[in-house]
Amino acid sequence: MSRVKIPRNKENDYTEDSAKNRRDFVKEQTGVDLTHMAQYSMDTATLPGNIENFTGIAQIPVGLAGPVLINGEHAKGEFYVPLATTEGTLVASYSRGMRLLTESGGVKTTVLESQMQRAPVFTFPDALAARNFGDWISDNMHSITQAAEATTSIGKLIKIEQYGIGPMLFLRFNLSTGDAAGQNMTNKATYAACEWIKSNYPGGANYVLSSNIDSDKKFSHLNTINTRGKRVVAEVTIPKSVLESVMNVSGHTLFKLRQISNTGALMAGNASNGAHAANGIAALYLATGQDVANVAESHASTTFTQLLDNGDYYWSVTLTSLICGTYGGGTGLATQKEALDILGCYGKDKAFKFAEIVAATVLAGDISLASSVVAGDFVASHDQYGRNRP
Amino acid sequence: MSRVKIPRNKENDYTEDSAKNRRDFVKEQTGVDLTHMAQYSMDTATLPGNIENFTGIAQIPVGLAGPVLINGEHAKGEFYVPLATTEGTLVASYSRGMRLLTESGGVKTTVLESQMQRAPVFTFPDALAARNFGDWISDNMHSITQAAEATTSIGKLIKIEQYGIGPMLFLRFNLSTGDAAGQNMTNKATYAACEWIKSNYPGGANYVLSSNIDSDKKFSHLNTINTRGKRVVAEVTIPKSVLESVMNVSGHTLFKLRQISNTGALMAGNASNGAHAANGIAALYLATGQDVANVAESHASTTFTQLLDNGDYYWSVTLTSLICGTYGGGTGLATQKEALDILGCYGKDKAFKFAEIVAATVLAGDISLASSVVAGDFVASHDQYGRNRP
Amino acid sequence: MSRVKIPRNKENDYTEDSAKNRRDFVKEQTGVDLTHMAQYSMDTATLPGNIENFTGIAQIPVGLAGPVLINGEHAKGEFYVPLATTEGTLVASYSRGMRLLTESGGVKTTVLESQMQRAPVFTFPDALAARNFGDWISDNMHSITQAAEATTSIGKLIKIEQYGIGPMLFLRFNLSTGDAAGQNMTNKATYAACEWIKSNYPGGANYVLSSNIDSDKKFSHLNTINTRGKRVVAEVTIPKSVLESVMNVSGHTLFKLRQISNTGALMAGNASNGAHAANGIAALYLATGQDVANVAESHASTTFTQLLDNGDYYWSVTLTSLICGTYGGGTGLATQKEALDILGCYGKDKAFKFAEIVAATVLAGDISLASSVVAGDFVASHDQYGRNRP
Amino acid sequence: MSRVKIPRNKENDYTEDSAKNRRDFVKEQTGVDLTHMAQYSMDTATLPGNIENFTGIAQIPVGLAGPVLINGEHAKGEFYVPLATTEGTLVASYSRGMRLLTESGGVKTTVLESQMQRAPVFTFPDALAARNFGDWISDNMHSITQAAEATTSIGKLIKIEQYGIGPMLFLRFNLSTGDAAGQNMTNKATYAACEWIKSNYPGGANYVLSSNIDSDKKFSHLNTINTRGKRVVAEVTIPKSVLESVMNVSGHTLFKLRQISNTGALMAGNASNGAHAANGIAALYLATGQDVANVAESHASTTFTQLLDNGDYYWSVTLTSLICGTYGGGTGLATQKEALDILGCYGKDKAFKFAEIVAATVLAGDISLASSVVAGDFVASHDQYGRNRP
Repeated sequence: MSRVKIPRNKENDYTEDSAKNRRDFVKEQTGVDLTHMAQYSMDTATLPGNIENFTGIAQIPVGLAGPVLINGEHAKGEFYVPLATTEGTLVASYSRGMRLLTESGGVKTTVLESQMQRAPVFTFPDALAARNFGDWISDNMHSITQAAEATTSIGKLIKIEQYGIGPMLFLRFNLSTGDAAGQNMTNKATYAACEWIKSNYPGGANYVLSSNIDSDKKFSHLNTINTRGKRVVAEVTIPKSVLESVMNVSGHTLFKLRQISNTGALMAGNASNGAHAANGIAALYLATGQDVANVAESHASTTFTQLLDNGDYYWSVTLTSLICGTYGGGTGLATQKEALDILGCYGKDKAFKFAEIVAATVLAGDISLASSVVAGDFVASHDQYGRNRP
Repeated sequence: MSRVKIPRNKENDYTEDSAKNRRDFVKEQTGVDLTHMAQYSMDTATLPGNIENFTGIAQIPVGLAGPVLINGEHAKGEFYVPLATTEGTLVASYSRGMRLLTESGGVKTTVLESQMQRAPVFTFPDALAARNFGDWISDNMHSITQAAEATTSIGKLIKIEQYGIGPMLFLRFNLSTGDAAGQNMTNKATYAACEWIKSNYPGGANYVLSSNIDSDKKFSHLNTINTRGKRVVAEVTIPKSVLESVMNVSGHTLFKLRQISNTGALMAGNASNGAHAANGIAALYLATGQDVANVAESHASTTFTQLLDNGDYYWSVTLTSLICGTYGGGTGLATQKEALDILGCYGKDKAFKFAEIVAATVLAGDISLASSVVAGDFVASHDQYGRNRP
Repeated sequence: MSRVKIPRNKENDYTEDSAKNRRDFVKEQTGVDLTHMAQYSMDTATLPGNIENFTGIAQIPVGLAGPVLINGEHAKGEFYVPLATTEGTLVASYSRGMRLLTESGGVKTTVLESQMQRAPVFTFPDALAARNFGDWISDNMHSITQAAEATTSIGKLIKIEQYGIGPMLFLRFNLSTGDAAGQNMTNKATYAACEWIKSNYPGGANYVLSSNIDSDKKFSHLNTINTRGKRVVAEVTIPKSVLESVMNVSGHTLFKLRQISNTGALMAGNASNGAHAANGIAALYLATGQDVANVAESHASTTFTQLLDNGDYYWSVTLTSLICGTYGGGTGLATQKEALDILGCYGKDKAFKFAEIVAATVLAGDISLASSVVAGDFVASHDQYGRNRP
Repeated sequence: MSRVKIPRNKENDYTEDSAKNRRDFVKEQTGVDLTHMAQYSMDTATLPGNIENFTGIAQIPVGLAGPVLINGEHAKGEFYVPLATTEGTLVASYSRGMRLLTESGGVKTTVLESQMQRAPVFTFPDALAARNFGDWISDNMHSITQAAEATTSIGKLIKIEQYGIGPMLFLRFNLSTGDAAGQNMTNKATYAACEWIKSNYPGGANYVLSSNIDSDKKFSHLNTINTRGKRVVAEVTIPKSVLESVMNVSGHTLFKLRQISNTGALMAGNASNGAHAANGIAALYLATGQDVANVAESHASTTFTQLLDNGDYYWSVTLTSLICGTYGGGTGLATQKEALDILGCYGKDKAFKFAEIVAATVLAGDISLASSVVAGDFVASHDQYGRNRP
């Protein structure tokens, strides 16, 4: 190999020609024919804003799970859920969980909060100056809000949290962002607000736009507590008979496992005491054009269950940092839009509905896997469905 | 909608006919034409073990980043890195970071550890019985190892950690798993070992195969400390002049930001004190057939930097739970194999090389983003490349 | 031994007679003469509210450290600091640090926040009911505040945080508590508020007064983030020459150690990236009648430092959950009051001053220990001063 | 005030004269008469190694709790437990819990592990060099062990954990330390081992003796997982009837509260999902000459309970970083030795027995407080016993 620049077309790089040039370049440099990557039906003209150096596609198989009956505020009815994954057993397992939820009369879903963050940090000579600055911020919320919201027709500044450490004041801006996941909208609004602050704070103020407490693209305890993206609950009461017939387990045994899982999660310092939220989230995100890197944050979740006196089993999962949207990002791309359409979730006023479907999906998968572990067919089912897997 | 089962063909469900049946079913149930999802070149016969209820594909755009010069133990030379994403700016930003690494003489990469876990829990009447059981486990490692390794031609049992809580003993089995990520291999081996233990421990022993301390598909502090998957370091010393010319920032300023980022990460309880490891990992995983749900664990990382007296800047990132493989899972699928081929990473004895490339990619992206934040063009660049993004 | 009840006097158990009865009882039951425990000068009549089954005293040696020059908002001037401990080296080391602070022109101290919490949890049939309840709470803050504040002439309800998990709503009441640490004041106010809520919420509401998120008497990430007790900063800029003459180290070397300590703290999941805040806090708390169990929460701290271009060294420590008071608890007992008097901190309007002195003390000890580790005399000094210690 | 040095006698500072000089000095400088601090019966000649600048004492009231029936490996029989505290209700509440344990047939206690740590860090030019160094450490364990153990007649090197981050290798030395808490013993042994390593590693090796992952005097997740000090379990099965008669609560209700407490602890990121381990530990440590700063680490604990089918309630608490000893430190001081004598825990071969008593005490207090919260008399009992408390 030699240090050769990847070819780009400065006029318009989002053409099939440009893509082909790069595939040819790969062939030259590495000897690899990108035959399958070249097989796509999306229009390259739709790609600006989603990718640079477009070369082809990854083809990810999509399996259909469901139906799952959801009795949400926004998601109502039965849904077939497209899951993109290469992990055997996953679709089958989620589908089994969805059947349980449906036969239990459906899953309730509720969005508790919705907000996106950017957290700049302002630095001062000492802590007292930082604290005084914080007071000034509180006193000037009206102007700051105006500056922030001038950058967006959708986003609204909900609040600014303040955290002082030494001579620094971390400000955590919280915006509602409509149907978008909203990181960029929040960036811009926060940037504008910070520039206004910098210009108007007596004596000026230095800042860096990002301070690692947002915490973008990473799990953080702060986000679990104070909610990044959406805080969504999915909950179900599973009749004893349904649990036994569909899952072949008793609530009594599942509840014992729950005590162990809680204990393990506490000791290990888990981002979740549940089973595998990341699996369902990643697969549904992938199919629908969400940013899958957000799995890092979005899988944070808390499971709370109760064994009722009549043997029925109440199960809830609360996703505390679910980051998703139905507008912007990859949601408008060809297959991604189709996947959103299956769910009736493309476009305006659909973000809460979509978040509820994600939560319902996570709950289905967690019940299914936990039941499988308890019933002892965990290894066996992976052998059946993931049979070529080492 | 009505509760209608998704059609499956019990004889052979991995055919184009079956897939089409399901697309027709979607059309009937939801009115949505899955035109683009139907456009794939992969052979449906390759899909068993990767998906159930296959219906079509997600088309994810792939951009080419690089070249990045890697001076690793396993990855040596210049690499063009395929990144599958729908997030604008990402490929451009990682490419910029790769250029910096290359102009700095390349990035060093080292795999420190490699092991996969499954953690069953055994329960006893009291803590003393659990402790005695643990002693017995230590005394019988030879037989337990035999039982575990009988299930696999590749995996080797490295060690079993023991953690006692109340009347329970959590055992965390650690296996080397060759070129596979190895969760299933580890499951099977652990299951066999547990069955042997159950049969041979005087008086018997009850267990559940998974106890939430593995911690599969979720970030955990335990995995950060004791390593799940691969522990890999990427490091570079960036000459002062290169940093300034490529990134337009000084090491001095970057180092100040590092102090803030460390502080923010500590306070927020972040899984990473770095910038956005999840982005590069998700995009590279997606292109190469890794399980993207593992981003939940794999993004855990620790950045350690030093500003040298001559103004050069030493930067390292240590990924502590990087879960990936070059065999099994989605690695053999059509486009995924092509992507691995670009990197020369398909198949046998390539897993460490691949892990090193992931680490180098993460380092490139983190330096690029941090520089962008410091230089103040963070918002602007997102406007340029992610211009349709809310 | 036999199961014999400890003698109590139902009329008045806070007499020397009662104490002597119990010492005699100990002699009978265990053969141990409590000669030294019997040597106290405090008046037993002062003990109700501080102890039950009073039997004697623990004599804890107090060493005097300082003087430390503090330029705080509330603590101004030079202070001699009484430290009660049985750990050799501790007083000497803190004194050395105080000398450094004083020779550097003094330490700045600032209280950023002050509030005490109690967090009841209300449970509902489902998450939607819990969310609706939360909205009702927000709408009825005026009445809730009245109910809470009716129980106290001092405490003021600052805010109620809301955290939803499944069918539960955790409410975290925050009160200002004047000069008291204020746990009991906050308990009572929260209890009264909850009873008001229970009576007035349409349909009623069930709650438990404590839900483990306060988090009383234990470290929690939540308290680090959202402040329990006082959030206080101590900071100093140490001239290069002073650092070298007093501590025999360079700022350059200390700053390198800081990078390591930050990294270690991140990886290990420490409640503090500093050196040993718990030591100074425990010793000062013990001398002044604070509740030493609060060390569990109070040692949480974040160190942030900067090496300045001229070689001077800026060092700050932020205590994020410092729980202390100058009224109530053990502050009025005989020796404890004397210790507070040394600091000019007994009684009304002294709590902030006291908190500043604690922070200054912690800073002194951390700089001293870190310097000792860097200078390599860490083991030697423990040999000298803690020479009978294994 | 003026910057006046605290008087010290260079010949022998551990005399009543020296102490009086300092009390006079306090009087001069601050006007405060240290009347009560001067009332002590301990011999000042016993104080070297425990305090510097000895000025007087803190008088901490001690209450007697119990008896508690313990069926441990090392602690056997009924114990009266001396608790030093200024917090009203505490002794009464722990006593009530002890009565419950005793009436339930006693508490089982088991020490699972015992080890003390010091964690130096070695730094290298790159990660590969650090990894190679780690291999060399593993290959030279025999010599390293000899070097470490040459410094102590008691301590034994159990193992050295290795953690690689960037160009650093953190080594976490684990020693058994007999009846001592053993921090200093471990420091010396680790220092000697490091010096041996530095001299013998080809090309030499730089290190700092402490890296913040030990993690001394602070809570850390690492210590919870890998045990610092002693890992001890206390467990009891409480008959339904006893729970109801002594605590006036049902196991059913307590178990519901347990689910909430687990959830709260997970969300808040608590060091403990229990109630108030720190209270009992601090009070018992204070009475018996332990280092109370260790409450920071020692309060980390995990509660695991089960509601049995017959209505009995199994309750366990596992202390994961309990740091205590019966030799060295303050254990030999006058009142402290008396307190240890009450427990039959002074001196040789008593450390495990003492640790078991601590665990039993914690369990008693946690059951008592949880029952009180459930029974709704939490606020009322604080009013009764802590009546002068704000």
